[in-house]
Amino acid sequence: MTDTTIPTQPEAISRPQAAVVPQPAARPTVVIVGAGFGGLRAARALRKAPVDVILLDRHNYHLFQPLLYQVATAGLEPEQIARPVRAILRGQRNFEFRMVEVTGLDGAAKQVLTDAGPIRYDYLILAVGGETNYFGLESIARHGFVLKGVVDAVALRNHVLHCFERAMLEPDGEPRRALLTFAVVGGGPTGVEMAGALSELIRLVLVKDYPRLNVKDVRILLLEATHHVLTALPERLREAAAETLWRKHVEVRFGAVVEDYDGARVRLKGGEVIPARTLIWAAGAKAASLIDHLGLPTARQGRVTVTPTLQVPEHAELYVIGDAAYLEDDGEPLPMMAPVAIQMAETAVGNILRRLRGEPPIPFRYRDPGSLATIGRNAAVAYIHGIAFKGVAAWVVWLIVHIIQLIGFRNKLFVLLNWGWDYFFYERAARIITKE
Amino acid sequence: MTDTTIPTQPEAISRPQAAVVPQPAARPTVVIVGAGFGGLRAARALRKAPVDVILLDRHNYHLFQPLLYQVATAGLEPEQIARPVRAILRGQRNFEFRMVEVTGLDGAAKQVLTDAGPIRYDYLILAVGGETNYFGLESIARHGFVLKGVVDAVALRNHVLHCFERAMLEPDGEPRRALLTFAVVGGGPTGVEMAGALSELIRLVLVKDYPRLNVKDVRILLLEATHHVLTALPERLREAAAETLWRKHVEVRFGAVVEDYDGARVRLKGGEVIPARTLIWAAGAKAASLIDHLGLPTARQGRVTVTPTLQVPEHAELYVIGDAAYLEDDGEPLPMMAPVAIQMAETAVGNILRRLRGEPPIPFRYRDPGSLATIGRNAAVAYIHGIAFKGVAAWVVWLIVHIIQLIGFRNKLFVLLNWGWDYFFYERAARIITKE
Repeated sequence: MTDTTIPTQPEAISRPQAAVVPQPAARPTVVIVGAGFGGLRAARALRKAPVDVILLDRHNYHLFQPLLYQVATAGLEPEQIARPVRAILRGQRNFEFRMVEVTGLDGAAKQVLTDAGPIRYDYLILAVGGETNYFGLESIARHGFVLKGVVDAVALRNHVLHCFERAMLEPDGEPRRALLTFAVVGGGPTGVEMAGALSELIRLVLVKDYPRLNVKDVRILLLEATHHVLTALPERLREAAAETLWRKHVEVRFGAVVEDYDGARVRLKGGEVIPARTLIWAAGAKAASLIDHLGLPTARQGRVTVTPTLQVPEHAELYVIGDAAYLEDDGEPLPMMAPVAIQMAETAVGNILRRLRGEPPIPFRYRDPGSLATIGRNAAVAYIHGIAFKGVAAWVVWLIVHIIQLIGFRNKLFVLLNWGWDYFFYERAARIITKE
Repeated sequence: MTDTTIPTQPEAISRPQAAVVPQPAARPTVVIVGAGFGGLRAARALRKAPVDVILLDRHNYHLFQPLLYQVATAGLEPEQIARPVRAILRGQRNFEFRMVEVTGLDGAAKQVLTDAGPIRYDYLILAVGGETNYFGLESIARHGFVLKGVVDAVALRNHVLHCFERAMLEPDGEPRRALLTFAVVGGGPTGVEMAGALSELIRLVLVKDYPRLNVKDVRILLLEATHHVLTALPERLREAAAETLWRKHVEVRFGAVVEDYDGARVRLKGGEVIPARTLIWAAGAKAASLIDHLGLPTARQGRVTVTPTLQVPEHAELYVIGDAAYLEDDGEPLPMMAPVAIQMAETAVGNILRRLRGEPPIPFRYRDPGSLATIGRNAAVAYIHGIAFKGVAAWVVWLIVHIIQLIGFRNKLFVLLNWGWDYFFYERAARIITKE
């Protein structure tokens, strides 16, 4: 009884019908590593395929990363943008999830190595995603905050709120101002949205919590190394975004290259030092470092070089998608964004199915859905199908797009309620410090 | 400018009008330690009083502890039962909050000692609450889980869900069953509600997440040292509660005294050993250990002996309320429950105000509002004003009472939505493992 419920062989696990069908390997096994946008889409796309799907992730949930900055600014609760993988794919009969840490790859034996033993595959889709790129700046890795996972976001929320509590107890002006100075590094969508949300958290909500707070002591900086924010957008939208940030009292600094941070002082290239007890690093991404341990050919940002059909040369049964894949689109590497991962998942799955039918694979073609970024209430910039717009219209589009993309009706409902509440009551309910 | 916004003197902080009114110490300062049910009620009751109120807590939020077990069983999100103190008391002009750790007391100098320096008081209300009582069982303190704070509850949720993920990867029957055995120690309201909620999480929700789980491997024990659960209730309600637990597949064991737990095996008095990777300790409470450092006369459970007027002998300006206060009500020590703390807060504040008016203090009289405990959907027991009832009626009363008591309309709304959703869809949305 228990043996059939908890099989000891991966093969058996991936094929509950094994008992009925005698001969082994009746159905090929597709192993997917990573339950992000790409991995999840791949698993779903294989729903009706004559294969067994095993999805591996070290977390038991799919995280909607684009809204993580709202968890960090106390607007949303982590559980509202995360959903258990088992719940998402519940009812998909050829699917199985295993919460494991992938440690390596044995391409010859067609095995993924994990902390729970090896897992055999016939086809492997690597959708391991990306991680923060500190460009070797150890001090920032140690003292800075990032927005990659749930734990990061909650830690940042706790830290920001704690800085205000400590500032209230700090009689001296200088250390108090350092507690209230928040340096956001990187003018991409994450940095821009984080700076805007942080400004609104402080100026619309916390000022009411701290009647004795002198808002002049609060400083939010957006430090960008180049000379514009949101590079993906056309000139006038970039300028509109920067203007809006200024209006929200975010000091946008162009050509500001961070060289060092010790937890108390940010040092910029050129020698300028900014006292700040908070540095949020949103300036770089690279492929998940797991890739380094798989012995695959890599290109820039540690991403695996793939063929236009998303396969790894010399490993035809191995597909890499999303942030971890390096592929150029007319000379430019594809961006590390959800739409790329999702579209690649569809191409990779399509190519696996073609192969099962003995058809040739097709190359990946990226259809850019456009870019969106919000800087706060009623303020956003959008560039969709060549049409650039901003303000309330872009903001409404941003809301709709994000609610649609959120997985699970329940999450959609609760996030929408949160947004509605916060919009009308100028609130941020999750502003509790949950560390001991 | 900044000096007036962040004054260096507690007196100044507690009196923003100081600049206007020249003479010092015009209004007495009431310091309240603890933002639990008692402390919060005391602060509110002083709203219109001619005093300055300083509330101290090491957390920045008030926690609705009675629902903490629902956070531990993935039914609610922590932010939904916690509310920032500053938000709750926003707009109370004579109020100030400071997030500090109280370290001691200087009764002679009328100062509370904190990690942010001493704070002067004219009147002090100690509402520091209670903490887990392990009765010296070190091994349980080390390996067991408790339901005291947000962090405890989230850690327990993470652990329970993790046990299921690990069980799915565990081929051997014995270690797998140990992963799926949950021992709840203590048959009080917390233990009973926790065991019932755990059973429903597993049998209504997780069974769908883990189609290969053999539910026969799952075991939930409620270990009670005496011979009945919910001692506060009349005989037939206790029996009804125990019966309901049995129906929910909770093994209720009476006369089961836990002697040791090493993280893998629970040893009972008499030698019986139960393999279990989870032990939840809900068997004892005592006054917060902070009390030990204040040099006050204490009685059973480390609670401060107070006069019927809730004052500490020899410290007429010092009041102790709630779990931390020891007072007998016809021979029996008052229970460590929210209603006692709330009623004591009103009496203590009333006596402070009487004293300001030169009137004599009145003794505390406890009005028992009755007891309620739910064992899961449609199942609860209630004993209110001498009327005993159970089943759906008691369950509905339980729902209403808890929604009413929850602080903040927003929390009420979100908890109600969660409950409705989970009730109709047999869901528990917060079942994500948020540890790294």
